[in-house]
Amino acid sequence: MTERERPHSAFETVALTADGVRLIDQRRLPSEEVYLVARTVDEVADAIVQMAIRGAPAIGIAGAMGIVLAVRGGARGGALTAAVERLSATRPTAVNLFWALERMRRLAVTVEAEAPETLEARLTDEALAIWAEDLEMCRRIGAHGAGLLPLGARVLTHCNAGGLATAGWGTALGVIRSAHAQGRVAHVYADETRPFLQGSRLTAWELQKDGIPVSVLCDNMAAHYMKRGLIHAVIVGTDRVAANGDIANKIGTYAVALCARAHGLPFYVAGPSSTIDLSCPHGDAIPIEHRAAREVTHLGATRVVPEGVAVENPAFDVTPADLVTALITERGVLRAPYAQALAETFGRPRVP
Amino acid sequence: MTERERPHSAFETVALTADGVRLIDQRRLPSEEVYLVARTVDEVADAIVQMAIRGAPAIGIAGAMGIVLAVRGGARGGALTAAVERLSATRPTAVNLFWALERMRRLAVTVEAEAPETLEARLTDEALAIWAEDLEMCRRIGAHGAGLLPLGARVLTHCNAGGLATAGWGTALGVIRSAHAQGRVAHVYADETRPFLQGSRLTAWELQKDGIPVSVLCDNMAAHYMKRGLIHAVIVGTDRVAANGDIANKIGTYAVALCARAHGLPFYVAGPSSTIDLSCPHGDAIPIEHRAAREVTHLGATRVVPEGVAVENPAFDVTPADLVTALITERGVLRAPYAQALAETFGRPRVP
Repeated sequence: MTERERPHSAFETVALTADGVRLIDQRRLPSEEVYLVARTVDEVADAIVQMAIRGAPAIGIAGAMGIVLAVRGGARGGALTAAVERLSATRPTAVNLFWALERMRRLAVTVEAEAPETLEARLTDEALAIWAEDLEMCRRIGAHGAGLLPLGARVLTHCNAGGLATAGWGTALGVIRSAHAQGRVAHVYADETRPFLQGSRLTAWELQKDGIPVSVLCDNMAAHYMKRGLIHAVIVGTDRVAANGDIANKIGTYAVALCARAHGLPFYVAGPSSTIDLSCPHGDAIPIEHRAAREVTHLGATRVVPEGVAVENPAFDVTPADLVTALITERGVLRAPYAQALAETFGRPRVP
Repeated sequence: MTERERPHSAFETVALTADGVRLIDQRRLPSEEVYLVARTVDEVADAIVQMAIRGAPAIGIAGAMGIVLAVRGGARGGALTAAVERLSATRPTAVNLFWALERMRRLAVTVEAEAPETLEARLTDEALAIWAEDLEMCRRIGAHGAGLLPLGARVLTHCNAGGLATAGWGTALGVIRSAHAQGRVAHVYADETRPFLQGSRLTAWELQKDGIPVSVLCDNMAAHYMKRGLIHAVIVGTDRVAANGDIANKIGTYAVALCARAHGLPFYVAGPSSTIDLSCPHGDAIPIEHRAAREVTHLGATRVVPEGVAVENPAFDVTPADLVTALITERGVLRAPYAQALAETFGRPRVP
């Protein structure tokens, strides 16, 4: 594994090793902490599709590392393009994956033309740079966002935008970690986040390891706790920020934002620049992934929806910009009007 | 079993038989349709606590039938009072249980004083009357409410306020059944309703049996479907209506109401007069049951919340009257101001 700074003492989300892309199998948390190694592009793609690894920044990193595996396997030219396409086809909503793959593809084209014998080394460095930059962006997001929370705040989060969703530290949980260190977070409520239960299985697991007080509630309970005055702020991550400030995030985020608005609570969204898609004009243009019915029809092996009854399973929803109190990025805290703030902050080319 | 009108051709929620109180075990639906017989007051109480039977009107009926079992077992005077107290202690939020038990208790006191040899017969008749009245009330609720829906409506419901929650037909699902027969319901979205999954397990099962088109979604998805214009109205049941029109219902109802309001959708609440508690001034005075952590921490035998992490599990929440578009009762459709409408409609003594 890489000798660079470890993202978090307690676990390692994703790493490039001599054997392949090593990742903690998030399907088996919290009961088992098992690492698996994806040795080929197909295995990386499967791990993303099956959500062994998930979280917008994390799948971007895994995708970039998958391109290194392709090069190690001898892929060049059209075969490299095919690897990029294979990985791109895994999940449609988060933009970080496309951003990371495009960054790898462009570099590959340049290096293949100029110094093809350095291709593996250059792409390896690039994938590790994407990993390291993500970690650094999360640290900065945490530092920028922490001051938004009052001392002793009780904070609600939805899904997992933590170390497990990034190179480490996390976006929404990065803010919570930084704020907790300053005495600003007294308690975290983690929505369990049906159907995949990223909140109960992943967010609770991460925060417990860090000694940050956390309790889990079902998604449908959050409004009740807001009404009782037990929640002071909401912080979530994002899979894509459109040019107008609309954000896509895990299904249920939009309902949380509506409930926060109804109770006059701030609704913060944390994401690195790799999540911002200025080519996407607004939220309606973000493709929403629909996942397999079985995630809803079954709990483990037990069927809970009658045979023959249809189910809905959109994996994401869009929260309009006007419900977002602030957007926390590694370059600072952005406020409405977002179209202007995003263009001014991120309107320059991002790919080196 | 009773020879009275069957509530619904497809299943029987609760019945008084020679052996005891016979009920469909709702914990085992939809995979198994199993009936169990509670032979003692304790067994009825356990069935209510463990939610083998649930739904505000249904547990009222089961409680009344439990008092018949007490009398069959020889309970009189103080022992009958103890049976009432044992059954009252099962679940705190729904008022129907207390209403039915109080009705049985008062009658028992009168009959014990005047014609003690008729006690079992009189209390049996009373319990069956409560059952039959509930069925009739649901039919009327359906008839009153159906006209509220436009032709071809796509309707969201939360939890199960159906035949399984009542003597039969249902409150919210009674409206849906009556409206569907008139061509007013094109599709029902059933919130799965964590953690007990009454929506996916029970509502979907009931509606499928009736041939009413239904799909299941996770609770956190409803707002996304509202935003997409796929939901035209919300109908839910209620466990208690306070004098000011605040309503308690299954946890998550309040969030649904907030989301409906944000999208300009009507939010209808259906309940029989046994659900209305004019002695309760407002929603904050309704006791909210908190249930065992295991309902949230485990899916079947699998732990999904890390050991040592706390969970929240309130079983109900309160939706304030100002979010309720109309209250559908067996005496008609009530509109704001609810304090006045409820007092005028239900301000007379209800117990015969």
